Amino acid sequence: MSSLSTAHVLVEALPYIRQFAGRTVVVKYGGNALAGTSEHDALALFAEDIVLMHAVGIRPVVVHGGGPQINEMLARLNIESSFANGLRVTDAATMEVVQMVLNGQVNPQIVSAINKLGNIAVGLSGEDGRTIQVTQRNEELGFVGEIERIRTHVIEGLLTDGLVPVLSTVGVDANGTSYNVNADTAAGAIAEALRAEKIVYLTDIAGLRRDINDAMSLIQRISINDLQSLIDDGTISGGMIPKIESCMQAVRGGVKSAHILDGRIAHVLLLELFTDQGVGTMITGAQ
Amino acid sequence: MSSLSTAHVLVEALPYIRQFAGRTVVVKYGGNALAGTSEHDALALFAEDIVLMHAVGIRPVVVHGGGPQINEMLARLNIESSFANGLRVTDAATMEVVQMVLNGQVNPQIVSAINKLGNIAVGLSGEDGRTIQVTQRNEELGFVGEIERIRTHVIEGLLTDGLVPVLSTVGVDANGTSYNVNADTAAGAIAEALRAEKIVYLTDIAGLRRDINDAMSLIQRISINDLQSLIDDGTISGGMIPKIESCMQAVRGGVKSAHILDGRIAHVLLLELFTDQGVGTMITGAQ
Amino acid sequence: MSSLSTAHVLVEALPYIRQFAGRTVVVKYGGNALAGTSEHDALALFAEDIVLMHAVGIRPVVVHGGGPQINEMLARLNIESSFANGLRVTDAATMEVVQMVLNGQVNPQIVSAINKLGNIAVGLSGEDGRTIQVTQRNEELGFVGEIERIRTHVIEGLLTDGLVPVLSTVGVDANGTSYNVNADTAAGAIAEALRAEKIVYLTDIAGLRRDINDAMSLIQRISINDLQSLIDDGTISGGMIPKIESCMQAVRGGVKSAHILDGRIAHVLLLELFTDQGVGTMITGAQ
Amino acid sequence: MSSLSTAHVLVEALPYIRQFAGRTVVVKYGGNALAGTSEHDALALFAEDIVLMHAVGIRPVVVHGGGPQINEMLARLNIESSFANGLRVTDAATMEVVQMVLNGQVNPQIVSAINKLGNIAVGLSGEDGRTIQVTQRNEELGFVGEIERIRTHVIEGLLTDGLVPVLSTVGVDANGTSYNVNADTAAGAIAEALRAEKIVYLTDIAGLRRDINDAMSLIQRISINDLQSLIDDGTISGGMIPKIESCMQAVRGGVKSAHILDGRIAHVLLLELFTDQGVGTMITGAQ
Amino acid sequence: MSSLSTAHVLVEALPYIRQFAGRTVVVKYGGNALAGTSEHDALALFAEDIVLMHAVGIRPVVVHGGGPQINEMLARLNIESSFANGLRVTDAATMEVVQMVLNGQVNPQIVSAINKLGNIAVGLSGEDGRTIQVTQRNEELGFVGEIERIRTHVIEGLLTDGLVPVLSTVGVDANGTSYNVNADTAAGAIAEALRAEKIVYLTDIAGLRRDINDAMSLIQRISINDLQSLIDDGTISGGMIPKIESCMQAVRGGVKSAHILDGRIAHVLLLELFTDQGVGTMITGAQ
Amino acid sequence: MSSLSTAHVLVEALPYIRQFAGRTVVVKYGGNALAGTSEHDALALFAEDIVLMHAVGIRPVVVHGGGPQINEMLARLNIESSFANGLRVTDAATMEVVQMVLNGQVNPQIVSAINKLGNIAVGLSGEDGRTIQVTQRNEELGFVGEIERIRTHVIEGLLTDGLVPVLSTVGVDANGTSYNVNADTAAGAIAEALRAEKIVYLTDIAGLRRDINDAMSLIQRISINDLQSLIDDGTISGGMIPKIESCMQAVRGGVKSAHILDGRIAHVLLLELFTDQGVGTMITGAQ
Repeated sequence: MSSLSTAHVLVEALPYIRQFAGRTVVVKYGGNALAGTSEHDALALFAEDIVLMHAVGIRPVVVHGGGPQINEMLARLNIESSFANGLRVTDAATMEVVQMVLNGQVNPQIVSAINKLGNIAVGLSGEDGRTIQVTQRNEELGFVGEIERIRTHVIEGLLTDGLVPVLSTVGVDANGTSYNVNADTAAGAIAEALRAEKIVYLTDIAGLRRDINDAMSLIQRISINDLQSLIDDGTISGGMIPKIESCMQAVRGGVKSAHILDGRIAHVLLLELFTDQGVGTMITGAQ
Repeated sequence: MSSLSTAHVLVEALPYIRQFAGRTVVVKYGGNALAGTSEHDALALFAEDIVLMHAVGIRPVVVHGGGPQINEMLARLNIESSFANGLRVTDAATMEVVQMVLNGQVNPQIVSAINKLGNIAVGLSGEDGRTIQVTQRNEELGFVGEIERIRTHVIEGLLTDGLVPVLSTVGVDANGTSYNVNADTAAGAIAEALRAEKIVYLTDIAGLRRDINDAMSLIQRISINDLQSLIDDGTISGGMIPKIESCMQAVRGGVKSAHILDGRIAHVLLLELFTDQGVGTMITGAQ
Repeated sequence: MSSLSTAHVLVEALPYIRQFAGRTVVVKYGGNALAGTSEHDALALFAEDIVLMHAVGIRPVVVHGGGPQINEMLARLNIESSFANGLRVTDAATMEVVQMVLNGQVNPQIVSAINKLGNIAVGLSGEDGRTIQVTQRNEELGFVGEIERIRTHVIEGLLTDGLVPVLSTVGVDANGTSYNVNADTAAGAIAEALRAEKIVYLTDIAGLRRDINDAMSLIQRISINDLQSLIDDGTISGGMIPKIESCMQAVRGGVKSAHILDGRIAHVLLLELFTDQGVGTMITGAQ
Repeated sequence: MSSLSTAHVLVEALPYIRQFAGRTVVVKYGGNALAGTSEHDALALFAEDIVLMHAVGIRPVVVHGGGPQINEMLARLNIESSFANGLRVTDAATMEVVQMVLNGQVNPQIVSAINKLGNIAVGLSGEDGRTIQVTQRNEELGFVGEIERIRTHVIEGLLTDGLVPVLSTVGVDANGTSYNVNADTAAGAIAEALRAEKIVYLTDIAGLRRDINDAMSLIQRISINDLQSLIDDGTISGGMIPKIESCMQAVRGGVKSAHILDGRIAHVLLLELFTDQGVGTMITGAQ
Repeated sequence: MSSLSTAHVLVEALPYIRQFAGRTVVVKYGGNALAGTSEHDALALFAEDIVLMHAVGIRPVVVHGGGPQINEMLARLNIESSFANGLRVTDAATMEVVQMVLNGQVNPQIVSAINKLGNIAVGLSGEDGRTIQVTQRNEELGFVGEIERIRTHVIEGLLTDGLVPVLSTVGVDANGTSYNVNADTAAGAIAEALRAEKIVYLTDIAGLRRDINDAMSLIQRISINDLQSLIDDGTISGGMIPKIESCMQAVRGGVKSAHILDGRIAHVLLLELFTDQGVGTMITGAQ
Repeated sequence: MSSLSTAHVLVEALPYIRQFAGRTVVVKYGGNALAGTSEHDALALFAEDIVLMHAVGIRPVVVHGGGPQINEMLARLNIESSFANGLRVTDAATMEVVQMVLNGQVNPQIVSAINKLGNIAVGLSGEDGRTIQVTQRNEELGFVGEIERIRTHVIEGLLTDGLVPVLSTVGVDANGTSYNVNADTAAGAIAEALRAEKIVYLTDIAGLRRDINDAMSLIQRISINDLQSLIDDGTISGGMIPKIESCMQAVRGGVKSAHILDGRIAHVLLLELFTDQGVGTMITGAQ
């Protein structure tokens, strides 16, 4: 690459680096986000981005779920799911597995990948310091939690100490009982509670498109008002809706912007944060 | 109780409270320590002691293992142990279970019991911030770690923020691979690295005795030199040896005292810390 | 005492210790409060309580008068009192004796008793930093002061430095003239000005009783509203009235509670502060 | 006075003001120092100097005795002195009077004079915080103390809070018994312990003279070495010796300079501190 | 001078020194102010006053112009002035000379005079940190600036570091173009922006007089309201008007007082600041 | 540019940004360095680099001379140079011009270019706070200074306040007389005194070459030992020697590295600082 091109990238990036220094960025990391490459490499690239963001003064918070891994362990333990009104029920045996897999399998894997590069990641669950306090959403669904309150003292303390919290979305109710919580929703709520600069969802799609079949129709930047129109007219539908609603809720709650990124692109976090054009969809407040 | 007796307890306790305020006390909590009562009540009493210690300014750090729970999960998953030279081998499949059970089952249970009383407990594994860095002890034994280095930055940060770290003793090597670590040894090493005031082992025996069959022969206080003599002459033997050696190593490394307590006694931590006589065996440096 | 009883005292006391750490407690110490034991022992026990309170982070302030000692010195110097409307007049010669005895005899005695245990007591008079500023109450009564303003900078400075102020209640007017001030009233005003947690009066009675002759009728806790009723219906009368009114004024002014204790009970301060039941009468705000 | 003369005083004074800002100056104030004017006016002028020194950032500490006032009170109480080897004995009855007069009469008078101008003076005795700890000098002399140790925590705390300590020289031994201490010696020891910039003795003589009868022979500045010669050759003798030895001891102990001033000159402290020439004798370290 | 007179000056000065410690005093220093003595001596005396003010904790800011020196350099470079409506036009060539002379000749001379006594002066122009931001007053007049905004961050930073800013009144517009700014106006605006205690104008007149020919009619103190009356009735007229209006504007903007002093009097700054009577005219807010 | 290339630049740059945050980089900016583009554009690009370095936490210090501009002004003022032993003499008239041009012309131009982008530049001369103290190098050469001492308090203060000092290399001797100082030498001495991370010389050559005629022989990195060999064997000669010796002296004095860069390359500072390869010659300590 020519030195002129290099200089151009730097001139473009440095003001963003300045702007985001000291700011909190919540990154929702999902198992499916990294389909295009081998899982290990994808995790290593993700960890590198987190460490580089941290190096230039950003305060990243990683939030993760782990659906596929939970399903696999349920199968190994021959725990069959019951259903209520067509929805899967999280009974006590299932909840025990959820907790084990998220806290004892997925979380340490992400922590370890980051710590190979810097000893800065600390795994948390929503039970630590009762960070994610929930109520039962619905008796029939069992241990599925509705977020009642986010406590930020543990996360804030770790951030102040220069550490990177990696949070599994197990919640706890007022009696100390554990619940499963939707990770997309939890990520948004945490970003809001932390007054984060950004909430970033790493997915396995290339951002939002006006026409799902047309790569050229990627929406680079959209306000929450316009986004509501796209939901209303059916442009956005299906599985994206909960994620999008978490984005909108976070932005309404004070997060400066929400981002839907394609986790399969190498260094997608850096490209989105430090270039003018970005590579995914950025959702901002009403203008 | 008469007001005179009450006053006597207070007059005795207050100077200890003053003396230990701001000091770090590492408590090794083992599954077998609580045999005399129902497990749940024992855990609740233990949690109450931790919260009361924290209330008067002590900085408790809880370290735990979880042997019985690991064995149970191995059985459920039909994972059979292989052996090398008569010792159980921790292969990859076993290690995965160790990590899941310690971080995802035992740790959240302790955290939750404490947080019912105060939102101050934060679960950690030795992988967080690479707190427990290990090397492989022996290739034949598989993923069994020998402690190489304790990093205290995560624990210290949490303590400074007024939180109570609850640490599972999973370690990690320089390449990010996870290892099982002996919890007694790890607790001692952590107390040493934290320059703790005390390391307390909660066990299911009533402290050290000169004659194992004579309850009146309890050793209330002993120096590490005299303790060595007791090992040399066979008074102490068998399963107590590793725990005792962890005590001696910690005291040699600067911890003011190590304590062997009977975890089955209600509020044993308070009784040991805040009364002149104590209730177990206190091990101090050479005099 | 059994370890269970001991544990019970500790479990009860530790939350109070946490709650009162860093809080200011004003203790009015009167010469007559200690009748049941030899004076010297009573003073030593009192000093021990003050030092133990200080040890666990409470900030005690001792306020004292010294009527009997003043009378004795007046007699030795053959100074006879004149009277106005039946009240004793504090003329210049008397005032000189008041000042000498309070600052030069009683105050050093209390300071010295505390300092035998810790070098933390510092004697003050209300003239230091013009802490107690007064106006003349009544020309006929001579140098008897009415409190106009409490300045807290000297006391606050000493408390911040970890010291225990011991204050004699000599006041000073705007011209620098010294006045005698009622010690009960001064203690209440100082507690109010310091926004103290508690004002404690050590007396020679066993708290307030509904029936003065019935020890079982001790009032353990009462609001200032109910107390007013007891004054109105004559249950409380005579010499207790000024003390009670100082209590009520202090509580109205923001002090959390006022306590009437029997100074003849050993360690009465500890028993009142650190047990659920207490041993005297606690006066709280309207509920 | 012409503006040129005024400007000259200011140009000369400002560098001293800068130089002494933040420095501690111990002033020994003796009853006899103020003979030339009415006592009240002299005290008011002295108080004004202390307040002005304080205003420009100097940290003054006043140390006083009170011999004449003690003698008067002993007479009023008909306490006769016994003698041992020709020296007056301080028995228990006498010591009680010493304490009362110094702490309860002389000290409040000085405190009050300063506080008329600023609410900054705080009276202390050497018993407060066990500031002056002594041993008995000699059993026959009774309660006459030899300084064993000066504790500065109370004085330093008050200075840091912007207050002016006024210290009576009653000392206390390890058992809490009170002793009389020579005020000149105590002032020097306190200056040394505080690492003061200066110790100033206000006396009723016009500084040191080479020829006691020749006002022109005033010694303006002398080193401790040359001063020793003057003692050795008899130029200095009699009652000045103890004061001079306290000066020499203080300077040897690190005080920058000691000053013998004529307390009868109005504003003598300001003239000595803030003019090139000074008005008394300044004693400095060996050069 | 007698020690009584000296004491009198000190007693009078010390309270002012206390009062002004930590306060900012802006001094407008004009080339013509020092006519009565040789320029070098006047500058040295001025520098001494600034250093002495600084020594006792005042934060002086020097603001200067340099009309005569600019004229001389224009002549040396044969740059002739054009005129518009009878006013001199600052064209580009002239502006270049203004900048060179103020920043490169007058400013270093003042800085150097102060630094001979203390290494505390730092030369600034209004372009540094864009301290003086202007707009063009009038196209015909060329590079003559009207003050739009004063930024104080550079000056405040230097003051906090204990340095003395010496500021030439070159301003800069939003595009980075340099402009000449009236020094009297700039000094007043800077005092206002700094919330200074005082703005002092050193002139070559002996303060304001009610009758210009009568030295005895000097106005020692006047409010801005009364001053307006003197302008309205013609007592003040001509060249003094702009200076007086800068004073009034500064006082209206929060500066406590403005002073018109005769710069030809030695140490005039000290005499005005530290004596009751002062030597010039002090302008205060409406009363 | 592809997103992969962009990501590559960022991944490479971010660690340097982290590494240099909070470090001081001294940049010697010379008039001749910018020959390849129009002067104005070059200055604007240079200013942009300084502002971007500042944005990511580097503390830049700009040092400049101004030979061509001085010569032009000498010509306009018809000041002819005299010579001593073939060297130009800086007489008083010349020195006056040096000071005017550096402080009043070149310095404001650089300050203004930076401040268009951020209000952070503050112009200084070596006389401010007596930053550059000199002695006369040689009487015959007149006002040519040899650096005796660098004072860093003014520069450090501005850096701490987040400002960018722009320093002209006029020095001052102990008597306050101004001297001309070689800017290359001064830049090196300032970097050394500031314990800077780097000293960067912007020149009009493309770094050091082993063969001056072979662009491919550019030396990218060399130790001061190897550099000495190149001087000894004549590879480096002529006008580069003083600059190189300033580099070597700075590195010996503790500056981590010195850089010779081609100021004609756009954004050369960013390319050198934030890429692995750099674009000029980097001189490091002996290895």
